[in-house]
Amino acid sequence: MREVMVLGVGMTPFGKFRARSLRELGADACWDALADAGMKPSEVQVAYCGNLAGGLLSGQEAGLGQIILREIGIAGIPVTKVENACSSGSVAFREAWIAVGSGLYDVAFAIGVEKLTEGTTAEVTTALASAGDMEMEAALGLVFPGIYAMLARRRMAVYGESIEQCARVAIKNHRHGALNPRAQYRNEITLEEIAASPMISDPLTLLHCCPIGDGAAAAILCSADVARRGGRPAIRVAASALTSGLFREDREYVGFESTQRAAAQAYEQAGVGPEEIDLAEVHDCFSVAELCHYEDLGFCAPGEGGRLIESGATALGGRVPVNPSGGLLAKGHPVGATGLAQIAEVVWQLRGEAQGRQVDGARVGLTHCQGGNVQGDALATTIHILQR
Amino acid sequence: MREVMVLGVGMTPFGKFRARSLRELGADACWDALADAGMKPSEVQVAYCGNLAGGLLSGQEAGLGQIILREIGIAGIPVTKVENACSSGSVAFREAWIAVGSGLYDVAFAIGVEKLTEGTTAEVTTALASAGDMEMEAALGLVFPGIYAMLARRRMAVYGESIEQCARVAIKNHRHGALNPRAQYRNEITLEEIAASPMISDPLTLLHCCPIGDGAAAAILCSADVARRGGRPAIRVAASALTSGLFREDREYVGFESTQRAAAQAYEQAGVGPEEIDLAEVHDCFSVAELCHYEDLGFCAPGEGGRLIESGATALGGRVPVNPSGGLLAKGHPVGATGLAQIAEVVWQLRGEAQGRQVDGARVGLTHCQGGNVQGDALATTIHILQR
Repeated sequence: MREVMVLGVGMTPFGKFRARSLRELGADACWDALADAGMKPSEVQVAYCGNLAGGLLSGQEAGLGQIILREIGIAGIPVTKVENACSSGSVAFREAWIAVGSGLYDVAFAIGVEKLTEGTTAEVTTALASAGDMEMEAALGLVFPGIYAMLARRRMAVYGESIEQCARVAIKNHRHGALNPRAQYRNEITLEEIAASPMISDPLTLLHCCPIGDGAAAAILCSADVARRGGRPAIRVAASALTSGLFREDREYVGFESTQRAAAQAYEQAGVGPEEIDLAEVHDCFSVAELCHYEDLGFCAPGEGGRLIESGATALGGRVPVNPSGGLLAKGHPVGATGLAQIAEVVWQLRGEAQGRQVDGARVGLTHCQGGNVQGDALATTIHILQR
Repeated sequence: MREVMVLGVGMTPFGKFRARSLRELGADACWDALADAGMKPSEVQVAYCGNLAGGLLSGQEAGLGQIILREIGIAGIPVTKVENACSSGSVAFREAWIAVGSGLYDVAFAIGVEKLTEGTTAEVTTALASAGDMEMEAALGLVFPGIYAMLARRRMAVYGESIEQCARVAIKNHRHGALNPRAQYRNEITLEEIAASPMISDPLTLLHCCPIGDGAAAAILCSADVARRGGRPAIRVAASALTSGLFREDREYVGFESTQRAAAQAYEQAGVGPEEIDLAEVHDCFSVAELCHYEDLGFCAPGEGGRLIESGATALGGRVPVNPSGGLLAKGHPVGATGLAQIAEVVWQLRGEAQGRQVDGARVGLTHCQGGNVQGDALATTIHILQR
C-alpha cells in the first residue's frame, strides 16, 4: 500500500431539509470537495458512496453514487455503494483509501449522504433499527436507545458513573456545536434542560440522544504525486482500521472491545499513541457512548471516562478536545454522512481552518465511527488517523 | 497490485426457499467455499458482502456480512456490505480482489446473497425498481421489463432482429440449466411455450424474463503465496473492470456502451482478446440482453447478436459457450448472489469440474454483470476474466 492523501473535503450543513433530495445533498457536498481540492470533475477516477437508509426511506437502494455524480458531470467511472450502518461514510473513505493505496487509481471520491426526514417516525426508527440484528434483536424490541440505556445502567453499576457525567458530554458537544456553522443545533444546553427533556429510554432523555437529520459530506483522496501537483495543503492518511465485534458476553469491562482493537491497529499503523492525538471526532450517538470511547481509544483508563469529561480535558482548550465539531449530538447524525463529516472536520482542524473552534497547532487528528450493534458490540468500528 | 487467486467457491441451489433466512443461505454458501478452499474460518482476514434488497424485503439493511459470518464462527475482522444493483455480488468479488491485490490482506471472503421471496409481488417489484433511478424514472413507471422491452423493439427496428432470435437465448439457457443441479429451473422450453407464456412487457413474455428467487454464493480470494501453500487448484484473476454508464442518448448503436468499455479494460488487463474466451457467464436478465452482450463483449459484430445465437456458437459445444450454468434465465437471479454464482461456475469450468455441462479444455473464462439502468445504460457493469 502506497501513501494516500486527502486533498479536499466538503460538507453540507446538517439539519432537516425536507425539500432537498439525496442527490441534491450529495451533489452539494461533492462540489464543495472538488472546489476545496482545486480539482475538476473529470480528474476523479473512482468513487465510493456510503448510505444506510436510501432504499428504505427514499426508495433508492442502488446507484446512489452514480446518480449523485451524474449531477456534477461525472459518469463512466467505477462507483460502488458501501454500507456499514453508522460507519457507512467512514467505510466509503476507507475503500477509497484502499483503491488509491493499491495503486489502481490516483484520485478517488468518498461520498456519504443520508436523508432521514423522508419517512414517518416509525419508518425512520425501523430504518435505523435495520442497522442492528433485525431477526434476532431489533424485531424483539432491542433497538439503539435501549442498547445504550442498558450500557449507561451497566456503567453506573460497575464504575459508579452518574447520569450527570453522561450529560456533561451533551453539554460540551452542544457548546462546540454552537461554534460550528454547519451544525444542526447551535444552542448551548444545561444540565437542567437535559434532565427535563423527554425520557427516551431510562436513564437517557432526549438530549442524551443524537438527532434525526439530513446531510452529506465528501472527501477527495489521492496519491502523494497528485497531491504534490495540486499545490494544495494535503493531509496524510496515517492509519485506517476497520473491525467487527467479537460478540463476547463474558466481559467485566463495559465499553466496546471492537474500538479497542481498531485503536490498537490504527495507532500501530500510524506510529503514534493516544497521547499524541491532538483532537478526535468520535461516535457520540448517545452521550454515554463518548465516555466509553475515551477509554477504548486510550485517552483515559477503563472506568475513568466520567472523570475525564468532568476534568475538561476533552473540551476545546483541554488536553485532547473531542468532537470540536459538536459531534453527533449537536452537529447531527445523517448516518451515511457522519464518517466523512468527521474527516472534513479533522482536515479543517489540521489545516488551521476551523475558525472559532480551532484546536491550536493541531497536527494529528483521529476519527472514530461505530456502526450497528449485535450482542453488545459494534458491527463495524472504523478509526482513521490523519496527519498534516 | 499483486496477483490474486480464487482458491474456493461455493453456492446454494437457486430457487424459492421461503423458510430459509438470508443468514442461513449466506452461511451455507460460505461453508461450501471454505470446504472447497480447504480453509478454516479463522484464516479469513477480510470480507465483502453483496446484497440489494435485504433492507427493503427482510428489514436487514446493515451488518448482513457480519451476521452471516458469525453463523460460521468468523468475527472481529473487517466486513463491508457493497451494493451495485444486480452487480452487487460481482462488486463484492472486485473489492475483495482490490483488498488482496493491495497487499493489505492475504485472504478475503466475497459473499453474495439475496432473498426475494420475502415480500409481496408489489414489494419485490419495488425493491428491484430501486436499482434504477427511482426519482426520475422508476417512479414514473420506467422499470426493468419496460426498459428491456424498449431495447428489444429498438433492436428490431435498427437491426431487423426478431423476437424468435431473442427466444433462442431462453431456449439455450434452459437447455444448459437442465444440466446444472443448482439451477432454479431445470426444464427445457420451446419457442411455442415462450410465445404462449404471459405477456410481461411487449414484446417480452414471461419466459424472456429471469425469475424471482433466493440464493447465495461465495468465493475465497488469496495471494499467490497463500494459494501455493494451500495445494488446491487455484484460478488466477486475470482482470477486473467496473464501469458506470455514460448516459448518452445520441447513439445509433443499440446495446450497452458501459459493457464495451468494461470489456476493453478487462481484455487489456488480461492480455487476451474476445477470441480467446473459452466460456462466458453474462447478465441475461432478459433474453434480448444476452444478444447485446455478445456484441459488446466482442463475440460478434454490432447487430449480429441474433445471427450468433442462431448459429449455435454460444451453446455448449459451440465456439464460445455463453451461460453454460443456465444463466439468469434458468439458473435464476437472486440479485446479490448472481455475480458470485458466475464466478463459481467459471471456476468449476476452468477446473474441469462442471460435469454434464463442462466446456472441454476451458482455460479462460469471463463473467459479466450489469446492475441498474439509468437513461439507457447500466449503472454498474462488472467484467472479470479468470484463467487457470
